[in-house]
Amino acid sequence: MAAGLVREKLDQAVDILGEKGVDVWMTFVRETSLSPDPSLDLILGMDMVWQSAFIVTRGGERIAIVGQHDAENVAATGGYTHIVPYLQGIRDALVETLTALAPARIALNYSENDVAADGLAHGLMQVLKRHLAGTGLAERFISAEDIVGALRGRKSPAEVARIRAAVATTLAIHRMIPSLAEIGMSEAAIAGRVHQRVREMGLSTAWDADYCPIVDCGPDTPIGHAGPLPGITLERGMLLHVDFGVKQDAYCADIQRTWYVRREGEETPPEAVLRGFEAARGALQAGFDALKPGAQGWQVDAAARAAMVEAGYPEYQHAFGHHVGRSAHDGATVLGPRWERYGETPYGVIEAGNVFAIELGVMVEGCGYVGLEDNVLVTETGAEWLSEPEDALWVI
Amino acid sequence: MAAGLVREKLDQAVDILGEKGVDVWMTFVRETSLSPDPSLDLILGMDMVWQSAFIVTRGGERIAIVGQHDAENVAATGGYTHIVPYLQGIRDALVETLTALAPARIALNYSENDVAADGLAHGLMQVLKRHLAGTGLAERFISAEDIVGALRGRKSPAEVARIRAAVATTLAIHRMIPSLAEIGMSEAAIAGRVHQRVREMGLSTAWDADYCPIVDCGPDTPIGHAGPLPGITLERGMLLHVDFGVKQDAYCADIQRTWYVRREGEETPPEAVLRGFEAARGALQAGFDALKPGAQGWQVDAAARAAMVEAGYPEYQHAFGHHVGRSAHDGATVLGPRWERYGETPYGVIEAGNVFAIELGVMVEGCGYVGLEDNVLVTETGAEWLSEPEDALWVI
Repeated sequence: MAAGLVREKLDQAVDILGEKGVDVWMTFVRETSLSPDPSLDLILGMDMVWQSAFIVTRGGERIAIVGQHDAENVAATGGYTHIVPYLQGIRDALVETLTALAPARIALNYSENDVAADGLAHGLMQVLKRHLAGTGLAERFISAEDIVGALRGRKSPAEVARIRAAVATTLAIHRMIPSLAEIGMSEAAIAGRVHQRVREMGLSTAWDADYCPIVDCGPDTPIGHAGPLPGITLERGMLLHVDFGVKQDAYCADIQRTWYVRREGEETPPEAVLRGFEAARGALQAGFDALKPGAQGWQVDAAARAAMVEAGYPEYQHAFGHHVGRSAHDGATVLGPRWERYGETPYGVIEAGNVFAIELGVMVEGCGYVGLEDNVLVTETGAEWLSEPEDALWVI
Repeated sequence: MAAGLVREKLDQAVDILGEKGVDVWMTFVRETSLSPDPSLDLILGMDMVWQSAFIVTRGGERIAIVGQHDAENVAATGGYTHIVPYLQGIRDALVETLTALAPARIALNYSENDVAADGLAHGLMQVLKRHLAGTGLAERFISAEDIVGALRGRKSPAEVARIRAAVATTLAIHRMIPSLAEIGMSEAAIAGRVHQRVREMGLSTAWDADYCPIVDCGPDTPIGHAGPLPGITLERGMLLHVDFGVKQDAYCADIQRTWYVRREGEETPPEAVLRGFEAARGALQAGFDALKPGAQGWQVDAAARAAMVEAGYPEYQHAFGHHVGRSAHDGATVLGPRWERYGETPYGVIEAGNVFAIELGVMVEGCGYVGLEDNVLVTETGAEWLSEPEDALWVI
């Protein structure tokens, strides 16, 4: 099923090695159901039990050194030019293969900055160094963070198609919420009804189901990382805010929508709610307008942040945007402020083919939280909305 | 929901630190939805986004240093005696906390031998060393593999209860297979019907759904790591072998069952099939009988392996058993032969409270594969079947 996508990403990896001037990129793994490497999903799409090495070269070779039980399944992906099966231990095949390639540098999946490029466990790195002891090969290791960041970040056509599908399903479920949620129902109960829809569709949530959806009813619920609470209920005159996404065919969406629940006889939402919504929507647009290839992450964040402040609202206390793809937080460049906790990630350069979730919000006193989040594709010249943004506040 | 279990495991961790004579065990993580540490499930049960440290001391302290957004959720587990929230970066709080504890040794989650104890990514280890530079603390790091192996392997009462439930559900689905599978149906179609039942129950499979269930029809299907094939169908006179488990409340079962599909007018299975079944069942029993606290993994494997050879069948080409728990392959001690590819894992010592999947099988020429696998709990004096074993070959 995923074989076409795996071949697309492996082709892309060869191009990226050429562009970055690196001879060999190696993904080294074992028992990946317990210790997954995020890169393996891109270039293989199945779990390995024994120690396995997936080597891509600048010259276009794609070599898989795997236990003999796995050789047939790996070959079936059609992505590898050489399959090297082993029976007893991987060491001999690994040393022989790498020695023959004679690479100046060997890029491995470790990174201080990008968690998506940090798939090699510390103990497994020691195992690898032992395997290569005395060969001079371990002295050529470099971080693959540039390679993995580009490979993961530049979505291929098949990947964009899958994200579009996840976005469409997520928005369809968001649109069901007015019929799922009832006045007096708790946040936890509303989340339960969303989970039921997700299960009926045979899908899963884009992140930990305890926090997906996040459901916020009114002004007194904690905003941030808290899950939906059983003790807070939806009442008239409240804002209802939902942060949600499905994972479909292994790709995620991450979208926030906000509704105002009218009081009896109330025609339009209160002025303060509408003003808050317009400020959030305007700042989201300002960030979207700044999103284009060549910009650095922090510049996009700064545009949205400035628009928010200019509209008379406080700065949001998080980053404006993050990659979305295999994971709802897909690593690499963050569209965030140059704060210590974001490290080097806001300095990354945006590239065509990147898909971001962009988000922000404002608190409206006495009513609740207006949160907006959409998924966007970076094009050659700017960006494209993958989710149609909420242009006028939704009303229940 | 999982808070009671988390507290149980943290209590157990304190005892294990005393037993092993280690002052401090630290689980250091970031963005765990993308880069999970298997230990975090045991001692926290939720994902963290920012860098976070979970410190257990021999003296009984359980300290969580986490981003301020996460502080409330971590406190809600009730497992931590101290919550240290931070806003900008973790370094200051981390250095201050560890310096005050003044540990002789700091056990971290890295291991060459046990993948379940190798949750610390190599890049994140570099980040940690930078945080602690100049303090002398990084020089006290040791592998936590003994601690994690004991903590993960000694199932608490709540964990055993969850595994029992997963086993019961898995066996219930196995028992549905004669009514789900029809003559002429492909392996892939049979697997599809099993998946449908799993979805209807709101559960997931214990491992990658492409290989769970494994369905093997007859003598011509590849045995081992291959998924169910669309081109191989169930016919009369064949053995049907299914390797399957559900994950329920985060705990797994891993059980194999085998059926013989009678030909028209055939009363009992062919002699060769019955002989193969008896050999497999006898060898499974021989391994079970050898399973007790104090034995080493390879000794249990050797008992089953010898019984198989004595019955006139070839040695199985894999390990006899593996831990099962949070994951279907739950790390640490393997009940396997002392072959190079199993490294040090067959030398581990079996402890009361361990739960293993024990498995083996034989090929019957012209009919297919007889595979048996059951889940067993190690008691103070021996072992207890968690799944009632297949005592007479099941017939369709």
